[in-house]
Amino acid sequence: MTQDELRALIRTVPDFPAKGIQFRDITTLLNHGAGLNATIAHLADMARASGAEAIAGMEARGFIFGAAVAVQLGLGFVPVRKPGKLPVETIGIDYALEYGSDRLEIDPSLIADGQRVAIVDDLIATGGTALAAAELLRTAGADVGHALFVIDLPDLGGADRLRAADLSVEALIQFEGD
Amino acid sequence: MTQDELRALIRTVPDFPAKGIQFRDITTLLNHGAGLNATIAHLADMARASGAEAIAGMEARGFIFGAAVAVQLGLGFVPVRKPGKLPVETIGIDYALEYGSDRLEIDPSLIADGQRVAIVDDLIATGGTALAAAELLRTAGADVGHALFVIDLPDLGGADRLRAADLSVEALIQFEGD
Repeated sequence: MTQDELRALIRTVPDFPAKGIQFRDITTLLNHGAGLNATIAHLADMARASGAEAIAGMEARGFIFGAAVAVQLGLGFVPVRKPGKLPVETIGIDYALEYGSDRLEIDPSLIADGQRVAIVDDLIATGGTALAAAELLRTAGADVGHALFVIDLPDLGGADRLRAADLSVEALIQFEGD
Repeated sequence: MTQDELRALIRTVPDFPAKGIQFRDITTLLNHGAGLNATIAHLADMARASGAEAIAGMEARGFIFGAAVAVQLGLGFVPVRKPGKLPVETIGIDYALEYGSDRLEIDPSLIADGQRVAIVDDLIATGGTALAAAELLRTAGADVGHALFVIDLPDLGGADRLRAADLSVEALIQFEGD
């Protein structure tokens, strides 16, 4: 399937989670067997080209895409979790959201020193979550050079922020100016 | 990889999340490329044999295994989410936990009437979450006959509870009596 065909499988929901926001909903893409399969194949191609030795994905939607990409490539998957979910000693990072803040945690023992880890998530908006995840994985010793997304909202500047932090950014689908 | 080899990749963490609980931690399995790949291959074989036409997985760890199984089989994936995450009109179910209660939600428009949906999750303990998910998917019109897990804790009786609700239960790995 082409990227235009995949784009057509994404549902736009107006005014969610707040008035004025056009929510790009990937559940309709997930629900389409061939679309989901093609999405993972595209992301896996990008991850392979990046030289990734492991895939990291952020809870919760990043788990859907990241783990499937890891399986496709025979790589391990590193879950980047919300606070309190991991049963072992973790390292964490707090980061700002539009309203308030959030926190991500990982188990640093899952990262080998210098291991090339690619980040996979469903969508990049302002890039705050991906930037925090990259910083956290780097703190654990990972070589994080690539962040891969299904959807980019370029108007929000997230990809530029990530590039400024030495991340190569790729996305399958863009939604601009609406 | 054999099931014994996969079992050896699961880390047991004592006293998490509460004293006396032996937490079976799948992050070490996820982190092992060949182990993750073999786990998904086994689950996909079970799902194929069940005649599943779609795979449902529960937030958050069920997303990791469920979506990868769906991709492997070229099927669609139905996310069963925590409250307030889905941007459209949902149906939900409240269910009891050991302490308190929780709620799951789905978008019923993602389910075709009579569609055979298999549930995939990382672990079955008392079975409360899987039972709630099955009931919710059935309310949306799904024919839910199979629930597939990486780990079963048979001492907690979850599989028996699910079987009493007309679900066929399979798990790759058992942890008993400890």
